[in-house]
Amino acid sequence: MTLLSDAAVLAELEQTPGWTRVSKTLDRTYRFQSFRDAMFFVNGVAALAESAGHHPDIAVHYNVVALSLWTHSAGGLTAKDFALARTIDAVLA
Amino acid sequence: MTLLSDAAVLAELEQTPGWTRVSKTLDRTYRFQSFRDAMFFVNGVAALAESAGHHPDIAVHYNVVALSLWTHSAGGLTAKDFALARTIDAVLA
Repeated sequence: MTLLSDAAVLAELEQTPGWTRVSKTLDRTYRFQSFRDAMFFVNGVAALAESAGHHPDIAVHYNVVALSLWTHSAGGLTAKDFALARTIDAVLA
Repeated sequence: MTLLSDAAVLAELEQTPGWTRVSKTLDRTYRFQSFRDAMFFVNGVAALAESAGHHPDIAVHYNVVALSLWTHSAGGLTAKDFALARTIDAVLA
């Protein structure tokens, strides 16, 4: 995967509402009604991650889930990160 | 729940191998063969957390899972944290 230029990242961000670029990563935080709802979401993310062969960092703080995506092999953000971010929101949000 | 004294924390730590006190929290990191194995563990932790009514912070970085426990209402470590830590290891490790 090719590392995206800053301009390409901005263009991708416009198509990926709710996600923020934080240094080298693409991040989003989700808040749920309960821990159970949060875990249901986390398991959906895990399934999509396995399917994509691309795995976000996942942090669960009771009913809040934070996802962080980046492409390790490229050392930053690639199209793969934005594709998975959009798939997560399309399927689970 | 009563906040544990430093001496009580040390006594509890001796009975809770693998866990470390990090400032106000009780932490442990687990490494698995795969992301799937890590998620299986995370779901076990979630079930035990719901059962205990006490929820660790959970961070998943591919095959590595970090748990962090503390008792918010007490502002630090209580017997509840050590009890859940030991239950997690007894049931899942």
